[in-house]
Amino acid sequence: MRTATRRAGGDALCYPPDDRYPAPMTTAIIVHGGAGPARSDDDAEAARQGCLLAARAGYAVLARGGSALDAVEEAVRTLEDDPQFNAGIGSCLTADGDVEMDASLMEGATLRAGAVALVRGVRNPIRLARCVMERTPHLFLAGEGAMRLAREQGLPILSPAELITPRALARWREAKAKGAASPSGGTVGAVALDAHGHLAAATSTGGMNGKWSGRIGDTPVIGAGTYADDAGGAASATGHGEAILRVGLTRMVVAQLCAGAEAQSAAEVGLGALARIGGEGGVIVIDRSGRVGCAFNTARMSHAFIDATGAEGSGFLP
Amino acid sequence: MRTATRRAGGDALCYPPDDRYPAPMTTAIIVHGGAGPARSDDDAEAARQGCLLAARAGYAVLARGGSALDAVEEAVRTLEDDPQFNAGIGSCLTADGDVEMDASLMEGATLRAGAVALVRGVRNPIRLARCVMERTPHLFLAGEGAMRLAREQGLPILSPAELITPRALARWREAKAKGAASPSGGTVGAVALDAHGHLAAATSTGGMNGKWSGRIGDTPVIGAGTYADDAGGAASATGHGEAILRVGLTRMVVAQLCAGAEAQSAAEVGLGALARIGGEGGVIVIDRSGRVGCAFNTARMSHAFIDATGAEGSGFLP
Repeated sequence: MRTATRRAGGDALCYPPDDRYPAPMTTAIIVHGGAGPARSDDDAEAARQGCLLAARAGYAVLARGGSALDAVEEAVRTLEDDPQFNAGIGSCLTADGDVEMDASLMEGATLRAGAVALVRGVRNPIRLARCVMERTPHLFLAGEGAMRLAREQGLPILSPAELITPRALARWREAKAKGAASPSGGTVGAVALDAHGHLAAATSTGGMNGKWSGRIGDTPVIGAGTYADDAGGAASATGHGEAILRVGLTRMVVAQLCAGAEAQSAAEVGLGALARIGGEGGVIVIDRSGRVGCAFNTARMSHAFIDATGAEGSGFLP
Repeated sequence: MRTATRRAGGDALCYPPDDRYPAPMTTAIIVHGGAGPARSDDDAEAARQGCLLAARAGYAVLARGGSALDAVEEAVRTLEDDPQFNAGIGSCLTADGDVEMDASLMEGATLRAGAVALVRGVRNPIRLARCVMERTPHLFLAGEGAMRLAREQGLPILSPAELITPRALARWREAKAKGAASPSGGTVGAVALDAHGHLAAATSTGGMNGKWSGRIGDTPVIGAGTYADDAGGAASATGHGEAILRVGLTRMVVAQLCAGAEAQSAAEVGLGALARIGGEGGVIVIDRSGRVGCAFNTARMSHAFIDATGAEGSGFLP
């Protein structure tokens, strides 16, 4: 394992990128399909395959010289459209039986970001998060204000019948019977490094099964669910949103990368902080050299990557 | 100036508190009334006085052995009730002419936190944020879901006529004429250390004058507007919310404190990161030894403190 160059001073925030660090001429992507409770082996294998397809979709963007931001948006859009994941089609339901989705993305070159929360019916919340970043004076829009932007931008809006899957409905009935919200897993995310040396991260979710209407988790929160800074790396988180918010998981992981940690080590330090407050979840990471990292403390976390050497990898067990 | 003890390893996150650090038997509080553009000298002096009253209200809680969390809630509640500030009564308006308020608080001993966004009519959003923390399974509720909790908990709900001040209305008409949102200043916040060695922070705002409906700024975001960790310190931010979100300002300042920085130095490092992306704002800080810090790069930021020696201070100029 190579040791990352340690930045003099070890600032927690390294933007703007320091030209002492030459941009790597390599690309990498890692995606996740959520950290969560054990599913059947068949379900886990299907989620692994879904992640691999999304990683390839994002990698195709990188391979033709596209930006990391375009790559993570494409990978997450692919996962939102796959009904087995808890994001876009297949999102879990609130206690009231509605779908309220959250998403965010961030560009490491500029620290620009976009986020949406509590959006209903929008087929691809990650596209709406990008619209917030690029077409509004704001970073974070929620609820009806976000929906208004979706309509203005002509984004596809689905009916509940198109968005809700039989599986999501069955899980909602279980939660309803228990009378409690439960971590449902299946949040999706992607992190990429492009050939220009730029990093990006994106995350999207339907949230927690049976959550209170109006609940916002870590996914749309910059520094909790998503963070990217070209001077260190980028990360996307999944798991118990309330715990991830309390530790500021991705902001912390990227601060570790800025201080010289490599991707896997930074992911593990972040998970250690999450575990110290009893939180369960996982995080995927790419550092500025293109090394990928993935750590989680749940039963399973489906993930797939194509690393700086072009090698594919995927799995769901620790 | 004493030098803070440097924590071995300098972890970005230090929870749980390390018993190598004896709890200080001292108390301190600092409050702010927002970083923003120049107002008249009379307005600035009135805001300074308002901050001083709020600092005393919070300090009274600490003096009778109350918790830092109770103290910051009391100080922020006082500022929300003061119509000259942009929080609670006196909040600025959205482009649509509605009031949509955001607030959050965090307890350094446990890293527990509560936050609300886009709440309408609630007299004291900071009380609602505390209800989210203590009476729900969630950390962050927004919009109608948050309003439902306010009604269930019997919190006072005001009509628009009670909540909107002539000044907020005049500013809204100005923004409407210009057709653009503008930083209005007047966000409020408080940070305290109690006699048990526990820290807390709280922040509340009406947001940006003329903001899009549904816009969420830094104030309700744990790690952006508000953060507290007994192992380092606590902080509350104010200013251009989108920029503060991008750097994760309070999370970064508290990470500096955890790494051994003292309060004023950590505040200045945070402001440096904000300035590097062109952001304007300010931050108040208390470290675990009870030293207070305040830094801002706007024309003015009203603030007041009662420090570990019992001395009062207040001002609005750099």
